[in-house]
Amino acid sequence: MGFTRKSKPEEWSPIIIEGVHPEVDGGRYPIKREVGDRLVASADIFKEGHDVLAAVLRYRTIKETIWHEAAMSHIDNDRWSGHFDLHENTRYLYTIGAFTNTFESWRQEVTKKSQASERIESELLEGRALVERAAKRAVERDKTRLEALLKQWRPSDTQEAQLGVALDEELSQLVERHQERTAWTLYDRELELVVDRVRARYGAWYEIFPRSQGNNPERGSTFQECEKRLPAIKAMGFDVLYLTPIHPIGRTNRKGKNNSLAPTPTDPGSPYAIGNEQGGHDAVEPSLGTIDDFDRFEKAVRAEGMELALDFAINCSPDHPYVKQHPEWFARRPDGTIKYAENPPKKYQDIYNVDFYCDDWFGLWNEMKRVILFWADHGVKMFRVDNPHTKPVAFWEWLIREVQDRHPDAIFLSEAFTRPKMMKVLAKAGFTQSYTYFTWRNFKQELTDYMTELSRSGMKEYFRPNFFTNTPDILPEILQHGGRPAFKFRLVLAATLSPSYGIYSGYELCENRALPGKEEYLDSEKYEFKVWDWDRPGNLVDYVTTINRIRQENPALHELENLEFYEADNEHVLFYGKCTVDRRNILLVAVNLNPFHAQEARLRIPVGSFGIKPDEMYQLHNLITHQRDLVKGEVYSVRLDPQAEPAAIYAVRRWTHREQEFDYFF
Amino acid sequence: MGFTRKSKPEEWSPIIIEGVHPEVDGGRYPIKREVGDRLVASADIFKEGHDVLAAVLRYRTIKETIWHEAAMSHIDNDRWSGHFDLHENTRYLYTIGAFTNTFESWRQEVTKKSQASERIESELLEGRALVERAAKRAVERDKTRLEALLKQWRPSDTQEAQLGVALDEELSQLVERHQERTAWTLYDRELELVVDRVRARYGAWYEIFPRSQGNNPERGSTFQECEKRLPAIKAMGFDVLYLTPIHPIGRTNRKGKNNSLAPTPTDPGSPYAIGNEQGGHDAVEPSLGTIDDFDRFEKAVRAEGMELALDFAINCSPDHPYVKQHPEWFARRPDGTIKYAENPPKKYQDIYNVDFYCDDWFGLWNEMKRVILFWADHGVKMFRVDNPHTKPVAFWEWLIREVQDRHPDAIFLSEAFTRPKMMKVLAKAGFTQSYTYFTWRNFKQELTDYMTELSRSGMKEYFRPNFFTNTPDILPEILQHGGRPAFKFRLVLAATLSPSYGIYSGYELCENRALPGKEEYLDSEKYEFKVWDWDRPGNLVDYVTTINRIRQENPALHELENLEFYEADNEHVLFYGKCTVDRRNILLVAVNLNPFHAQEARLRIPVGSFGIKPDEMYQLHNLITHQRDLVKGEVYSVRLDPQAEPAAIYAVRRWTHREQEFDYFF
Repeated sequence: MGFTRKSKPEEWSPIIIEGVHPEVDGGRYPIKREVGDRLVASADIFKEGHDVLAAVLRYRTIKETIWHEAAMSHIDNDRWSGHFDLHENTRYLYTIGAFTNTFESWRQEVTKKSQASERIESELLEGRALVERAAKRAVERDKTRLEALLKQWRPSDTQEAQLGVALDEELSQLVERHQERTAWTLYDRELELVVDRVRARYGAWYEIFPRSQGNNPERGSTFQECEKRLPAIKAMGFDVLYLTPIHPIGRTNRKGKNNSLAPTPTDPGSPYAIGNEQGGHDAVEPSLGTIDDFDRFEKAVRAEGMELALDFAINCSPDHPYVKQHPEWFARRPDGTIKYAENPPKKYQDIYNVDFYCDDWFGLWNEMKRVILFWADHGVKMFRVDNPHTKPVAFWEWLIREVQDRHPDAIFLSEAFTRPKMMKVLAKAGFTQSYTYFTWRNFKQELTDYMTELSRSGMKEYFRPNFFTNTPDILPEILQHGGRPAFKFRLVLAATLSPSYGIYSGYELCENRALPGKEEYLDSEKYEFKVWDWDRPGNLVDYVTTINRIRQENPALHELENLEFYEADNEHVLFYGKCTVDRRNILLVAVNLNPFHAQEARLRIPVGSFGIKPDEMYQLHNLITHQRDLVKGEVYSVRLDPQAEPAAIYAVRRWTHREQEFDYFF
Repeated sequence: MGFTRKSKPEEWSPIIIEGVHPEVDGGRYPIKREVGDRLVASADIFKEGHDVLAAVLRYRTIKETIWHEAAMSHIDNDRWSGHFDLHENTRYLYTIGAFTNTFESWRQEVTKKSQASERIESELLEGRALVERAAKRAVERDKTRLEALLKQWRPSDTQEAQLGVALDEELSQLVERHQERTAWTLYDRELELVVDRVRARYGAWYEIFPRSQGNNPERGSTFQECEKRLPAIKAMGFDVLYLTPIHPIGRTNRKGKNNSLAPTPTDPGSPYAIGNEQGGHDAVEPSLGTIDDFDRFEKAVRAEGMELALDFAINCSPDHPYVKQHPEWFARRPDGTIKYAENPPKKYQDIYNVDFYCDDWFGLWNEMKRVILFWADHGVKMFRVDNPHTKPVAFWEWLIREVQDRHPDAIFLSEAFTRPKMMKVLAKAGFTQSYTYFTWRNFKQELTDYMTELSRSGMKEYFRPNFFTNTPDILPEILQHGGRPAFKFRLVLAATLSPSYGIYSGYELCENRALPGKEEYLDSEKYEFKVWDWDRPGNLVDYVTTINRIRQENPALHELENLEFYEADNEHVLFYGKCTVDRRNILLVAVNLNPFHAQEARLRIPVGSFGIKPDEMYQLHNLITHQRDLVKGEVYSVRLDPQAEPAAIYAVRRWTHREQEFDYFF
């Protein structure tokens, strides 16, 4: 508003550019996409009067200095849209520019007037001057061509003859290419776009305690023993192997079995109480192996076609080297003591929290960055972050950006089980993926509502869900009470509703013994060595394998926003579908959410939206049972028995081959 | 994000403040309120961990340098709210600050721990240190009192005795008043708030051509003759008298009757073709009088308790002094000619447009400002702006701010009948009020939809509708075909749906002769002198008087956001209500939108929302007919005959007096 006589009209932004989409909080935070996506951006773009406008979507990666431009088109009601393709795993910037398309404005005016048989001598002079100016600015071939066309445009010719040249399409394109960008206006913000690799959106996670992968109940298993488990985990179809913390475990206030405060001398303690005299966050617990053993294990995971995710828990046991080396990082009470961690009502007597607000906060933050970069140097690019909502959001925003500047392929999963706005802001601030409330959404309406929020609201621009069926801290009620049927349908829900999902090992064994009245595991391996029988009766290994295979084979399941809920006339039956943009992969999922009783439902299949005609016979192929059916129309009845198959995943297949298509028909 | 070791935690904004409401386009534009309002602001405010927070709404007028603070309260789910009252007609700024309420955080922690019988020696030391620090910062009485309380808090006392002092309410208030604002975070934007006078929201406008207020068809009336009309206009209940342009009218290409291009020598021309050798935008057309006559007229309008609004039309006739004095303000074609104005398909051969993009644009803009300030010096504070959507939005944003900096009571009404986004952005950029699509919204659903957008969407923060029933350019179809009944119910709609509304004179005479097939008046007074019989048969003067009196007497009609639509089981009957916050003024309006046939409808009166019990007898008082009725329950049947009363306005009155309330009952 502080204009002076010397300001140029461009400084007052003569064109209105507003309502830009996508944009998070007015550009405060970046949006997220994945490599291979197309960014479609739209905006309201308009100006006073009747000029014809032109608009460009400008973009560049943060490594580039020049802007690329993609032309935008007017859609309707002053709304414009443009797009560009995302080829690189890096940060992009984008914004919008607009200007008056002077020559096109002139063309439209002169066309109207000549059609109304009005006199247009002055207009022709005006138009010719526009062409002359463009010719002056053009170079090489364009200049030559413009000059040639100008020679054909003789002011002495008849109005009709001049118009013939003036309205020529080639002339129009040449002039538009070289005319001045009158009223040039740039949107007042540059918006950020994080383009992650595809694994940021799509992947199946498997969580283990590496010390509980062997056969000896007296000691923890080693990385070498873990390696033996890899083929079985891979065979189940997982993409990411996530390890709970692998660092030396504190001795002071070490927890015993079932979180007891009275451990026996052989109790290994919680791996979340990090650090002892053998090292801290950049060290490996000796009973697992050395850092070289870790490196070998990491390579073995890669060799299986999987990727490792580490747990990043900024917890320090009272024995962590930081406590001695950096006493300034810990807040002390007037009596000199340090408070142990609490997450009411939970108490972590074996853990100190660092103080992110201490005088040397910058030293602390940089040390955290060093730790992440240390593991990145050891091949780890995926980090599941423990309780990020108890550390400053600004810290995460800084840390993730710093790390991704060096490792754009780094993926951070936020384990924030907390209030909704904190969960969202952590995602906005940079977390690649987030744990969700899926764990506590069991029934039809609440699942529908929550999925609608995740896939339809503004959250879809920045919040990527990762649906864990269970975690070492959460054994949901539905699994405790619903048993094997619940384990099956909760797996189907997680794996088909969200492109990223995970199970904490033991899930495939239907392990559901809980502390009475709590959502916690009885005899949790957080506090003891465990030996598991991975083939124990009633296990779901085959079922998990089937579901992961269905995910891999069906690209519709690799997306979130394509989720649609459809009608099923039974409140226990959830019915939904996903479909690729090209409609070549159409999946329908029907789930009986009641683990106790068989349910029947009439499903309403939206055949029209799949391009299937009302009277067309199509095939439903149940990818779990391999049963096939022929169907016509919208209504399809199912019976889902939790003891048999609580869920059905159908591929919808059109009967495309017709005799008319074959050579021998002719 | 560019932190350095020297940054303070405050620089990373440790507290998240987002989702601030109200806010227009991320703070790009101001919101609007009126003197006497209360600004209620809310935001999501939260922080990592479990600290108790405090938040303040900060505000100041642009003339003040220090911020006032109003405490905000936590509502629910990290949402906070606060408010302050708006006493002054000026611009305000507001923003939000938040910090950790360290002492309250400590109080809650120590309370929980002591209830759980945990040891709290260290906590007590911590708490006492907080009190000591506050005592050090306090002054005068607070310091003395804090020091006295500290003396009672003896570390040698029992835990219980210490807690008794520690949890004392007085101590808490004293410490909170003087504790440091740890983690102090300011919202990153200062938001602007324009507080206008009440007339910006509420008023009845009456538009006249001042030259057509007399009795002589051979010449235009003078300001003196206009003055004679004032008592009648005031008697009808109008607040604002709006004059079409009063400046000298051009002679070149002057328009004749019915917009003809062949005027007779005595035709006065369109007052929108401004300027001739007798002056331009700061001159008065001599046949109306002198500037002194204008001043006298302005005072006479004020003396009647009304206010004048002038038309600001940036149109120059080819004879306007600017054309000679500032040829650089007009764009010329290569042949030296200046294009006349067009608003396709309308042509204004008698008007040149200035070029807001000319090299001397700043000189032009400042001259426009000088013109407005000239009239402000002559007592005019209301401007109805002609076709603002054909001038740069940035110009209006600049001009209105510049004028309101000197005259905060200046009111600008935007006459932009154009596409929706342009209408909205003009309001955002500063226009106090706006013409609307009301003119073309005739039926139940479209009226409901449009009113819902105006009163419920984000528009309510910045867009104040002024519902004109008609204008010199628009004689709506419904009036042409619907006749007197339509004139009545369109008046009721305008006057009760919108707190600001207006009629163009002649409306009260049911003038509806149109150019065939157009929405334009036949023999429009835009192009000729007119003499009106203000008492002609069939006039609505009494009806207009009644409706304006009802508006004045019922404060519920002075608001927009209190509009609620209710059920009526007839698609021609619109039923709605307005109610003051204290529910002392409750109005219901039922309108038969069909001017051709009587309609019956069962109205559903939401008695519960008015605090009326289901079995309570209440009174409906029809303020138009003065009929009263006694009603119980929700259902009330009406018959609205367009030939009698197409609309009913009911005051809802509870039967409040009971024998128990009177002295003699006892």
